[in-house]
Amino acid sequence: MTALRPTGRPAPTLESVAARAGVSRATAGRVLAGSSTVGAQARDAVLRAAAELSYVTNRAARSLMTRRSDSIAFVVAETEERFFADPYFALVLRGAHTTVAEHDVQLVFTILAGEEERRRFERFARGGHLDGVIFVSLHGDDPLPGALQAAGIPVILAGRPFAATSTIPFVSADNVGGARSAVRLLVGKGRRRLATIAGPMDMTPSIDRLAGYEAELAAQGLRGHGVAEGDFSVAGGRRAMEQLLAAENSIDGLFVANDLMALGALQALAEAGHRVPQDVAVVGFDDSPLGASARPAITSVRQPIVAMGQALAERLLAGIESGEPQDPLVMPTEIVLRESV
Amino acid sequence: MTALRPTGRPAPTLESVAARAGVSRATAGRVLAGSSTVGAQARDAVLRAAAELSYVTNRAARSLMTRRSDSIAFVVAETEERFFADPYFALVLRGAHTTVAEHDVQLVFTILAGEEERRRFERFARGGHLDGVIFVSLHGDDPLPGALQAAGIPVILAGRPFAATSTIPFVSADNVGGARSAVRLLVGKGRRRLATIAGPMDMTPSIDRLAGYEAELAAQGLRGHGVAEGDFSVAGGRRAMEQLLAAENSIDGLFVANDLMALGALQALAEAGHRVPQDVAVVGFDDSPLGASARPAITSVRQPIVAMGQALAERLLAGIESGEPQDPLVMPTEIVLRESV
Repeated sequence: MTALRPTGRPAPTLESVAARAGVSRATAGRVLAGSSTVGAQARDAVLRAAAELSYVTNRAARSLMTRRSDSIAFVVAETEERFFADPYFALVLRGAHTTVAEHDVQLVFTILAGEEERRRFERFARGGHLDGVIFVSLHGDDPLPGALQAAGIPVILAGRPFAATSTIPFVSADNVGGARSAVRLLVGKGRRRLATIAGPMDMTPSIDRLAGYEAELAAQGLRGHGVAEGDFSVAGGRRAMEQLLAAENSIDGLFVANDLMALGALQALAEAGHRVPQDVAVVGFDDSPLGASARPAITSVRQPIVAMGQALAERLLAGIESGEPQDPLVMPTEIVLRESV
Repeated sequence: MTALRPTGRPAPTLESVAARAGVSRATAGRVLAGSSTVGAQARDAVLRAAAELSYVTNRAARSLMTRRSDSIAFVVAETEERFFADPYFALVLRGAHTTVAEHDVQLVFTILAGEEERRRFERFARGGHLDGVIFVSLHGDDPLPGALQAAGIPVILAGRPFAATSTIPFVSADNVGGARSAVRLLVGKGRRRLATIAGPMDMTPSIDRLAGYEAELAAQGLRGHGVAEGDFSVAGGRRAMEQLLAAENSIDGLFVANDLMALGALQALAEAGHRVPQDVAVVGFDDSPLGASARPAITSVRQPIVAMGQALAERLLAGIESGEPQDPLVMPTEIVLRESV
């Protein structure tokens, strides 16, 4: 709580609050502990004095003054099935949860799979039950974060907003840079006939990873040997790999926009008789525990998922305190070498 | 929403509310839509008339009248790691989520791993942000559900309460009956030297599954060949199996209190050179997708996990509407035969 108090001033005491309010220390204490046995006039005086002195006993007393709920929501715009299938979500949630707990704030989690759920969540958020919202895995130019921000509820996004003109704060991995490093790795291993499995094109991480892939191909003077779009799932990666192989059987290097799709690609490659990495070298994205335990283990562009969850929570909480949206944060990626390259 | 209205009476109309309140239909409509442009006196008259007539336009209008948050919490008293490792939680959550959505209520989910988180959650619940709480995976004689119930917040438990004298509503599987059927299956397959891996003894499903195992052994005139306690995790099941084998190497049948521990037991049995089911027949509990996809696939006592999640939500919502706690519900189990027996 000390971080919330202006620095350089001595912390106000319960005595100073009581004196300013013209009540006894006991009365001031009862009001700040949330008691309802104190008359309205004395109660108002104490709360006003406490606010003027920036006196904060604890979160609960502060809630009384600020009318905050001291809770923030972690919202994943995916189906439950996707949420539980991809460890990415658990890891972002873990980071956010840890940080929020350190600030003595309640984290509530919800999934928004359809329009009804979005409408219901917006009603809940506007009902004063949440101080801020972290949005994860948004699709398209989603109006919900902007609507909440306009209603005075601080929001932050995992991944940059879809609309280039958006002013909503976000935390993102360096998706362009990560994809470029994957292509450089494949080229460095002598691969020249590269293809990619992209994520859904209504999501900015997918768009940026594809853009990085294509920019680095161009920088290397190479042409691409296929782009197929998946949905970030194992089954989607498998289908995308089958499409790529049907169109072009001589691919020797593959960049896949997440590790789950890379797992599906490994299945399709094995079934078509291609060895990994001898015939086709494969680089995924995320550094997912599922990719690390695959056979062959998947070389991946690591994004710092837990740290991104922490940064999302830290920046949202800072925005709630200051009333100002935070600057965007782009976090670096790194290659984790395993058997698939 | 029709289920919430007393049966046999015609639904009140907006016109009848307006007439009773002595205002125009347009004014009544504005008040019930949540408009703040109507004077306090007319507003009160409309809300009172609507309440007297049990008029409900929609959830948002009802919230205005009842001061409900129209949200319920789904609380898992485990670590995040346990939550994401065991599909049981995702399946109960799916059931509850589906039902809550059908009632146009927001479901928020949270994890309570430690004392700080419990204190914080209690503050949030008491702050008027939740209409009711579903508790899953409680340990010991947890005071939190009773404290919330005493504060007027309806609660319901997955699994019976630890204290026999508790009056908190719950939905449970027939854990005693399920365990008995597992023993009968093993005995029917000619197994006579049975052992069991129990769950944590601070949880009622573990206690009841062990009681059912022991009751059926006694009914069959058999003595047990070992009890080891695990923590419902794969690693815990593996350690428990190692303990059982160290004490008694001639076990030919094993009942395990959940499928995750049964997976660990399979690992320990394989390492000790015991074939499943030839040397040791194994029955788990849950009918978890992880047990179904194991090699050998695990025969299991199926509990209707998704239906239990639905029942938890239905009963909690009914309790919120009626103001009365609901009767306990014990749901039947059935054996699902697979390769491990």
